[in-house]
Amino acid sequence: MSVDQLIQKIKEKQNPSVAGLDPQISYVPAYMRERAYREYGKTLKGAAEAVWEFNKGLIDALYDVVPAVKPQSAFYELYGLPGEEVLHRTIRYAKEKGLYVILDVKRNDIGSTAQAYSAAYLGKVDIDGEQVEACPVDSVTVNPYLGTDGILPFVQDCKTYGKSMFTLVKTSNPSSGELQDLLLGDARIYEKVAELVCKWGAECMGESGYSSVGAVVGATYPEQAKTLRKLMPKAYFLVPGYGAQGGNAQDVKNSFNDDGLGAIVNSSRGIMCAYKKGDWKEEAFAEAARAEAIRMKEELNSIL
Amino acid sequence: MSVDQLIQKIKEKQNPSVAGLDPQISYVPAYMRERAYREYGKTLKGAAEAVWEFNKGLIDALYDVVPAVKPQSAFYELYGLPGEEVLHRTIRYAKEKGLYVILDVKRNDIGSTAQAYSAAYLGKVDIDGEQVEACPVDSVTVNPYLGTDGILPFVQDCKTYGKSMFTLVKTSNPSSGELQDLLLGDARIYEKVAELVCKWGAECMGESGYSSVGAVVGATYPEQAKTLRKLMPKAYFLVPGYGAQGGNAQDVKNSFNDDGLGAIVNSSRGIMCAYKKGDWKEEAFAEAARAEAIRMKEELNSIL
Repeated sequence: MSVDQLIQKIKEKQNPSVAGLDPQISYVPAYMRERAYREYGKTLKGAAEAVWEFNKGLIDALYDVVPAVKPQSAFYELYGLPGEEVLHRTIRYAKEKGLYVILDVKRNDIGSTAQAYSAAYLGKVDIDGEQVEACPVDSVTVNPYLGTDGILPFVQDCKTYGKSMFTLVKTSNPSSGELQDLLLGDARIYEKVAELVCKWGAECMGESGYSSVGAVVGATYPEQAKTLRKLMPKAYFLVPGYGAQGGNAQDVKNSFNDDGLGAIVNSSRGIMCAYKKGDWKEEAFAEAARAEAIRMKEELNSIL
Repeated sequence: MSVDQLIQKIKEKQNPSVAGLDPQISYVPAYMRERAYREYGKTLKGAAEAVWEFNKGLIDALYDVVPAVKPQSAFYELYGLPGEEVLHRTIRYAKEKGLYVILDVKRNDIGSTAQAYSAAYLGKVDIDGEQVEACPVDSVTVNPYLGTDGILPFVQDCKTYGKSMFTLVKTSNPSSGELQDLLLGDARIYEKVAELVCKWGAECMGESGYSSVGAVVGATYPEQAKTLRKLMPKAYFLVPGYGAQGGNAQDVKNSFNDDGLGAIVNSSRGIMCAYKKGDWKEEAFAEAARAEAIRMKEELNSIL
């Protein structure tokens, strides 16, 4: 689904936020982990099934509040093949519930290899003439370090299959500046990447006026976000770093355009671990997640 | 296994090369594909099983010639869950045959997420106190765009578990210069990344005098390799781009130190598709791969 469909879901839910599904095992309520360990042992399978039960509970509680979910591939690869299987199950389930699925994989490689990654997640796999889907999602994150020929296969599949993508521009982590902020003459690296995002995105414009080639811009760097918003007026921003990483609603405001669109703000730990704050019982993890997602929605709407 | 163990295997085989296992389905001999399709159909499973049979034949023919193999994750993710399963099977089989396994995943993320990736591939996964291996390999490739805190978890696991890693510095693809060659004052981005590689690597020095934190430096940019060799004297270089991508033996010479060590040169298509050149029959794909691997070994030794 292209950026237009993401925007439609954001408007329907009146909520420019995405729930990150980054299920470290310590996030999963203890009773749920113990149940899975009783059945499968403290194994990759046991951990993965606990994650699945947690994810399913979260999706059931969130699908009418948030427009999108963002599974973080690392926390499924972490549990080996059983983890990968649960990632696929989670994606399918989220799509069945009408959610827009952004798979956070940050893939990057030379052209022919980037094409394989793109076919796996956005496009189709050609098996001697049969067109097959491997792990179909609506959107992926990519890393720009290899330049245009590592990005174009994704752009092409966004066009062909009506998908979207988010290129890392300015990430939310403390050391993001080490490379991204380096000064070239009078511009920073992240501004140079922003220029490329505009160039790549020009071929993928939606009816909404936004491009299906978006950008990752961390909530933890609001001043840089302001600059980047101007440099990439038509790129949708995926904004990590809100909540647990320290970014607040005022900080993310700079990532939005005056039309109240242009950004979707991610919260992972804040929503998944909401039950660990306040007086929630573990069994109410989903209810707590829903309450936090609604609180976040209201907070975001209050600043827009 | 640390860089010392890689060097030991290189010395034993007298061969500083690594066979890339990037099995696009079109690389697999037609009779082998057809056999898999008869059993499993033109499905992800059919493609993955054809890839497995191909990989097994290649490993059987190469394990006493090359010290290492480098599976490219994209070409397994391409075939969904059956592809992932074949990746794991390939890794296990290569390790049983005594090969050093470098998994080409180019992972990158913020600190806590990088830790999950590193645990999955280099370290161990903690499942409520049980230490489990998810997808254990000897080495991975990583992307530096997020800076130090996305890299340190891998460095830590290299130290703890005696593994190695290769950070993208100057990649082999045509557009690698778009970001990597940008000029900051009097240095290029790739030189800046080289400085970081040295810093990260200082804590991971082996008895060989080389660090377990290595660098990816493309064979297609020999002049840049010469500069980078001086800037990172103790980093092992993983050198893609030899053969099919255009780099020749003279081009890769610059990636080696005067001790004849310091680099391992990758060939993927050149070895895997050797049977498509000359008078080989498809059934002799493994023999052709072996002949090409031996030719490459001799060529590399002739320039060192």
